[in-house]
Amino acid sequence: MSVPKIVILGGGYGGLMTAKGLQKELNYNEAEVTLVNQNSYHYITTKLHEPAAGTAHHDHARLAISSVINTDKVRFVQDKVTAIKLEEKEIQLENHEPLQYDYLVIGLGSAPETFGIRGLLENAFFIRNINGVRMIREHMEYMFSRYQNEKKEELITIVVGGAGFTGIEYVGELVDRMPELCREYDIPLEKVRIINVEAAPTVLPGFDTELVDYAVKYLESKGVEFLISTPIEECMEDGVILKGGREIKAATVVWTGGVRGNKLVEDSGIETMRGRVKVDEFLHAPGHDDVFVLGDSALVINEEINRPYPPTAQISTQQGQLLGKNLVAKIRGGEMKSFKYMPKGTVASLGRKEAIGFVGTKKYYGAKAALLKKLIDLRWLYLLGGVSLVLRKGKL
Amino acid sequence: MSVPKIVILGGGYGGLMTAKGLQKELNYNEAEVTLVNQNSYHYITTKLHEPAAGTAHHDHARLAISSVINTDKVRFVQDKVTAIKLEEKEIQLENHEPLQYDYLVIGLGSAPETFGIRGLLENAFFIRNINGVRMIREHMEYMFSRYQNEKKEELITIVVGGAGFTGIEYVGELVDRMPELCREYDIPLEKVRIINVEAAPTVLPGFDTELVDYAVKYLESKGVEFLISTPIEECMEDGVILKGGREIKAATVVWTGGVRGNKLVEDSGIETMRGRVKVDEFLHAPGHDDVFVLGDSALVINEEINRPYPPTAQISTQQGQLLGKNLVAKIRGGEMKSFKYMPKGTVASLGRKEAIGFVGTKKYYGAKAALLKKLIDLRWLYLLGGVSLVLRKGKL
Repeated sequence: MSVPKIVILGGGYGGLMTAKGLQKELNYNEAEVTLVNQNSYHYITTKLHEPAAGTAHHDHARLAISSVINTDKVRFVQDKVTAIKLEEKEIQLENHEPLQYDYLVIGLGSAPETFGIRGLLENAFFIRNINGVRMIREHMEYMFSRYQNEKKEELITIVVGGAGFTGIEYVGELVDRMPELCREYDIPLEKVRIINVEAAPTVLPGFDTELVDYAVKYLESKGVEFLISTPIEECMEDGVILKGGREIKAATVVWTGGVRGNKLVEDSGIETMRGRVKVDEFLHAPGHDDVFVLGDSALVINEEINRPYPPTAQISTQQGQLLGKNLVAKIRGGEMKSFKYMPKGTVASLGRKEAIGFVGTKKYYGAKAALLKKLIDLRWLYLLGGVSLVLRKGKL
Repeated sequence: MSVPKIVILGGGYGGLMTAKGLQKELNYNEAEVTLVNQNSYHYITTKLHEPAAGTAHHDHARLAISSVINTDKVRFVQDKVTAIKLEEKEIQLENHEPLQYDYLVIGLGSAPETFGIRGLLENAFFIRNINGVRMIREHMEYMFSRYQNEKKEELITIVVGGAGFTGIEYVGELVDRMPELCREYDIPLEKVRIINVEAAPTVLPGFDTELVDYAVKYLESKGVEFLISTPIEECMEDGVILKGGREIKAATVVWTGGVRGNKLVEDSGIETMRGRVKVDEFLHAPGHDDVFVLGDSALVINEEINRPYPPTAQISTQQGQLLGKNLVAKIRGGEMKSFKYMPKGTVASLGRKEAIGFVGTKKYYGAKAALLKKLIDLRWLYLLGGVSLVLRKGKL
């Protein structure tokens, strides 16, 4: 009898943690583990708002997968998944032969949720991955570089759609970046407009109101304009139309308003809700004992409020950690453990030196919260590559 | 009787040298000198190909005018000239009251010569000034940043129109820049195309053929493609159409094919040929004893070959040096001297470490020529601001 084949799709937080767990726990020849990822690197989603604004280089938000995975124990295939064939227990790839699996782990991340806003996919930018944020930075810089030639205000107007976690963190970075950008292109700082548009009646819906007030006051003091309770109806190449018909001219529109599951999961025939799979306590896809789903594609209900947990790096990491152990148990005929999300606190950065957040019921502001955010980033590096990776890639 | 008013239009090589000469020679209250320039800075045209490729920051190619002119002696007006009124002896400005003059020095530089190529002004970029080259750099980087998303070859194809001095120097910088740019955007270097298109039957028309061969061989060894004897018929947003109908898809088209005089000069009623003024031996505009023209707007015939000298920083500088002295002589009722161009040699850089050039009949290649080029740049800094400016802004 041949050894069981485990295939992990996606080198995000969940997939990498699963792979790390398996490479640590499995004995020689106990299973054949393959990790498939489109890029040669993992990107640190929680930092993407920095390269998107240009406050940090995108290399600070990615890690070579070969530097965190032991490729003697886990086979790494760099390729794009084109289809998941559940019947045939087969994964189809763009440039490689199909892969057979006995156990499948799907951690393929998310796609932007546009809520049917016209023109959004075509004309807005998304803080999604390295290729995307690099493009946002370059687009914005190109628009700014044109200002002294064309003198159009829209070139130096940035609309950020969505004032959730990503939106607020991105706006915070933009505020930090503007003085440098204005010097670079000989633009008076006060001419730049950063407009954060949110359909919900508050910034950071669901966050503690005291923390939200702190964030809004800080960002407004830096010139950010908030348009709350204001849905975007259409996104054009040169701006947005708000509900009611008001138009804002802006050469750069970045959408952070939400995500949905990866379409490949939907297409596989697994039952989904807005592309996400309501997994059972062991993260099984419904009706498939050999298929696990984690990360942004998985939907786990917070029973206290009977609503899904928002998709975060934190919950994906915990799912990957559990799955690494559970798959070993399953192969050995042991018992799997149930997934139980343990929230460790949440911090939203507002640029380099400001942040808001909470751990349990304790609230944090300003420099202390900013430090907390950095410690959370360092913890991820530690989980991936121990102290040596923290020292190599971390920064305070 | 009031003191004579001298107005200098343009803070380029010619205008600045005139102003420097006047501030040195004139006694207190002997004349009122005003220098008008659109920007607060002078830009070093001979270096613009570097920031256009991104191999050097654009601040290395500009100097604050206040740092080289003594504003106690020369009044500096930062504004755009809108009209030259010869009858009224008046200069109209965009944001200031009109200026009256007794003597006028026109050094307003050039505009691109498009030779009637369709779409060139609308779709090509020009290596002309700081605002322009900064935009080329940002445009190119934005196009490269899109490559990993869209995978279109045209995004990483650059067409340089014109293989004259500027064209070749720019291509040399591009060659230097590409390895860094490809690393930045995860693009295989060999996929990038740099295509230099020239209507004339040779690269660097008029240059020594041995030097031209050296340059072409060097640039071809770095992957540059030359299309010689190949006029461009049309420039579109996404490429060019060559004579005969062949189309090259390229997201970045930079035109270096030639310059003509500034339109303001033509509009003033001064007689021009392709916007340039055939000045007399004292640099007078024909029929105007109180109006002098220098730099790219002036046309001086090389009598040895009965053709105009090409517009260069070198000839402009010499004209400004002469005019600074001649205007003092004129005010004092003395004799003006004739302009006689003294060619001091010519060097074309091919990136940071390569160049070709000649001084008199002696030819230079490679590292020696590259050093010569740097010395020429330093000399300009020395003329402008002495040793202290060389030390502050110069680099070898």
